[in-house]
Amino acid sequence: MYNMDKLFEAVAEKGHVCVGLDTAPEYVPEKERRSSPAETVLEYNKAIIDATIDIAACYKLQIAYYEEMGLAGLDAYAQTLKHLRERRALTIADIKRSDIADTAARYARAHFDGDFEADFVTLNPYLGMDSIEPWLQWADKKGKGAFVLMRTSNKGRRDFECLIINEGSSSPRRLFDAVGDKLSELAASRLGAHGYGAFGAVVGADPQTEEERKEAAAIRAGRPSLFFLIPGYGAQGGAASDAALLLRKGNGGIVNASRSILKAWQNSHEQSGKEADNAIAAQAARAASIEMRDNIRRAAGINN
Amino acid sequence: MYNMDKLFEAVAEKGHVCVGLDTAPEYVPEKERRSSPAETVLEYNKAIIDATIDIAACYKLQIAYYEEMGLAGLDAYAQTLKHLRERRALTIADIKRSDIADTAARYARAHFDGDFEADFVTLNPYLGMDSIEPWLQWADKKGKGAFVLMRTSNKGRRDFECLIINEGSSSPRRLFDAVGDKLSELAASRLGAHGYGAFGAVVGADPQTEEERKEAAAIRAGRPSLFFLIPGYGAQGGAASDAALLLRKGNGGIVNASRSILKAWQNSHEQSGKEADNAIAAQAARAASIEMRDNIRRAAGINN
Repeated sequence: MYNMDKLFEAVAEKGHVCVGLDTAPEYVPEKERRSSPAETVLEYNKAIIDATIDIAACYKLQIAYYEEMGLAGLDAYAQTLKHLRERRALTIADIKRSDIADTAARYARAHFDGDFEADFVTLNPYLGMDSIEPWLQWADKKGKGAFVLMRTSNKGRRDFECLIINEGSSSPRRLFDAVGDKLSELAASRLGAHGYGAFGAVVGADPQTEEERKEAAAIRAGRPSLFFLIPGYGAQGGAASDAALLLRKGNGGIVNASRSILKAWQNSHEQSGKEADNAIAAQAARAASIEMRDNIRRAAGINN
Repeated sequence: MYNMDKLFEAVAEKGHVCVGLDTAPEYVPEKERRSSPAETVLEYNKAIIDATIDIAACYKLQIAYYEEMGLAGLDAYAQTLKHLRERRALTIADIKRSDIADTAARYARAHFDGDFEADFVTLNPYLGMDSIEPWLQWADKKGKGAFVLMRTSNKGRRDFECLIINEGSSSPRRLFDAVGDKLSELAASRLGAHGYGAFGAVVGADPQTEEERKEAAAIRAGRPSLFFLIPGYGAQGGAASDAALLLRKGNGGIVNASRSILKAWQNSHEQSGKEADNAIAAQAARAASIEMRDNIRRAAGINN
């Protein structure tokens, strides 16, 4: 069984929320800050995880937040993954790694085995499919999955991802379509029980022009076998209706939110005057996750 | 002064060799292997560095080899960088990171400051220039540099990097040209004393068709302000003449070799029957580096 099958089932059961543990020490209530920023983050992560475990389909760790804190930060990253494994949660290592051949194989061992083991990773396709293929043996060996960047949620995507490719075809095809074609082939080679490949794609939601909303719908319709990791919701500006465009039959995607969950306590708490702590922040994160889950379900036309 | 200026001067003085510390424990002579693979690698790195310090223009660490060994491996990575700083060597963190906005800023702090501080990094441009720009403030603050993937040395580059972009222009333009245009703009905004921008590009050398040799020469001629990091030499199949195509007036590029230097002792030693150790491996690495330096100088028409 591929992890992507498990993720499909988690979405069906719990909804589409992927809680992003992009945790900076400054997001943590002052009262809970320790002398070690890495320990501060680890304890905060545990509180957030324990308060959202029945709401979140999965958790995504943005490794940059941990690399920034050096070796101690990467220890907190490993400990957070360990806590998530103990809670039997599905985990995405948002590492966007890209390298070829032997180097890619080493990255794969780093993030699918050992201290940093996760269920999924994110990958960058620029170098070509020989930078993706070395990860695939882990789909066969341990069911591991990946989300490969296709069309991201940032403005800069127009620089390269959205360039029009000249292949003599009549309808305009963009670079991300070329990436999507290769990913669809790859999904067909490792198709899971629910019709999605072991490896999926990153496709961003964000405030869109009507043309871009059509583009999102076309991407979803054209890629039935790709499960999507959808960033851009919440603090990045994307709405539930934007995310819903990228879902398929009520499933087929998870929607990531980080700051709007991790920092929810700041909005709800600043007026109350009571000093915030991790327990209060965790409850605010839980409430924000439930609200997000319900908003997406509504936008996708799913009855709770 | 930008680190890229220092690198130009190191090339003028020492030649074009970038020693790649992509060190796997199995590259180390058996006699020197310790119970900790990470310690094995660290001690081997120090021996290689000390034996090549007057030959190498710089050193490149492929972080995947260290991530594979988990937390202990990343400690060896940090210790290797520390040793290189003490020896006043220029260092490239081959991390090929890619992310946007706040996340990119955190990666930049991770690799330009603190435990993992290096002089240069490698970056992947797929997400667009807003994934590169957050790194630039470090060029202003501490002279830091980057090499952004443009056209790599692997076969898979044909999947995306080499796709032809349709912009209505008459001559065929490929994705890597679009990346090169943006990088040339960026170099113009941070131009160093020797005419190269603070940020350069990764352009691979490998066994090439006549058409691809022309393409390499055109890339070099069209990008006078980009300093190139040139992978693909040696174990990856590229020859000195392929690398020389990417140099400019005898400078403007460094050529990376890893396995052909780190594993040089295996070729030279297997016949002799004497048991190899780090001292023997270091001398073989030195000899391989000198040979590589002289081959490239000859191919570039530089008199020693």
